[in-house]
Amino acid sequence: IITMGIDIGSTSSKAVILKNGKDVLAKEVVSLGAGTTGAQQVIDKVVAETKLGKEDIDYIVATGYGRNSFKGADKTMSELSCHAKGGVFLFGDIGTIVDIGGQDIKALAVRDGMLQNFLMNDKCAAGTGRFLEVMARVLDVHIDDLGKLDAEATGKASISSTCTVFAESEVISALAKDNPIPNIVRGIHASVATKVAGLARRVGLKQPVVMTGGVSRNPGIVRALENELDCEIKVSEDSQLAGAFGAALYAYEACQQQK
Amino acid sequence: IITMGIDIGSTSSKAVILKNGKDVLAKEVVSLGAGTTGAQQVIDKVVAETKLGKEDIDYIVATGYGRNSFKGADKTMSELSCHAKGGVFLFGDIGTIVDIGGQDIKALAVRDGMLQNFLMNDKCAAGTGRFLEVMARVLDVHIDDLGKLDAEATGKASISSTCTVFAESEVISALAKDNPIPNIVRGIHASVATKVAGLARRVGLKQPVVMTGGVSRNPGIVRALENELDCEIKVSEDSQLAGAFGAALYAYEACQQQK
Ligand code: SF4
Repeated sequence: IITMGIDIGSTSSKAVILKNGKDVLAKEVVSLGAGTTGAQQVIDKVVAETKLGKEDIDYIVATGYGRNSFKGADKTMSELSCHAKGGVFLFGDIGTIVDIGGQDIKALAVRDGMLQNFLMNDKCAAGTGRFLEVMARVLDVHIDDLGKLDAEATGKASISSTCTVFAESEVISALAKDNPIPNIVRGIHASVATKVAGLARRVGLKQPVVMTGGVSRNPGIVRALENELDCEIKVSEDSQLAGAFGAALYAYEACQQQK
Repeated sequence: IITMGIDIGSTSSKAVILKNGKDVLAKEVVSLGAGTTGAQQVIDKVVAETKLGKEDIDYIVATGYGRNSFKGADKTMSELSCHAKGGVFLFGDIGTIVDIGGQDIKALAVRDGMLQNFLMNDKCAAGTGRFLEVMARVLDVHIDDLGKLDAEATGKASISSTCTVFAESEVISALAKDNPIPNIVRGIHASVATKVAGLARRVGLKQPVVMTGGVSRNPGIVRALENELDCEIKVSEDSQLAGAFGAALYAYEACQQQK
């Protein structure tokens, strides 16, 4: 059985093709989200990678912010369920999943491999990828370089606000006071960690804690969150694909039920 | 007895001189807030207006965000107490005071002329003067013209977010879709009203409702909040001076106690 999971986020599209709900035939990320050709591009890529035809894919589940405007799926599933399922597939035992998306943050409580509870904040840009975008623009650096810059920090500029607007003003005045950019970046990451840790604590923090979403590739954020929560945070090179993995696994279950 | 109240906000400084805790000898606003010469300028202005010398002023109370870094006061008081006291002086009977500041929003429950309870949000720029500044910049209009623009609206552009960052994106796309600027301004005012009304309801909304702070001079905001709360909102040309009035009244009480 060949299944595909596609996770259409606000800023990127991810797809995974699985065989029999366990072997990874292909996985891809395209940096274009909902409302673009990102979904189609990432599907074309994974399909090309497997050297299969589209007709060989038995079932497609779509998830993420853009799932409802995507027409090519057999079924759509909430991103929360998909993140939990994909997280367990990637990491095994999990207590809490923290997910920083392009425009939201989520904390999921997982018990016995199942989503038990969650909190999501999609009304506030603080702590999200958008927050990091705004800060990268003010610093005139690329958002993908924030992790590398953080590693060069010799200290941490104080960014006491979590609000994007107030933190932006603090970053501007830290720049005016000639704080080194790496130190400001570390302060920015601490602000994100404060916001996200609040959500994780409220959902009921339990180890092991894993982090999914594209932002988990930024080691500065991961370290800041480890400091803030005072525990280890696990990441995987496939963290960004957790939702797509979950969708592909749900697609596999749907196929089995049809039999 | 001559007393002065000075309210040093984040974006403006206000001062009032009272005789015997009731006659207004002078009142002034300067559009410079904490950390500037605004406080000194507004004091020089009100003193000059009365043709008194500084030595004739018996007691000075300072309030507002910048009160603690201001050295010229006999006493400092919380802006909440001063707003409540000044509000009652200006409006008489009050149930609820809504105050939109430069960087915060407040809702005060007043019962029998006394501050009974309050809620303040100074962690989030949504609904504050800063929100309006960001939107005015995106629209390339002056913040003081927002009220006039709102009056020209023929409809309301949908701005569904209250978050400054997400609402800014909505304003940019409303512009790209050629919505008339007045209609976008009306949508912006509705976003502010949603945020502020939430606070007012949580503090326990009771009529009469009055609005203080500089933003109350924007009739578009007042109308949006009236729509949102479904009740009349009273404003006064001195609404912006409520905190300074309260401070001058507390100064008068302090003088009487000294006797
Ligand atoms: S705290 Fe800042 S980023 Fe969050 S909703 Fe408020 S304005 Fe937006």
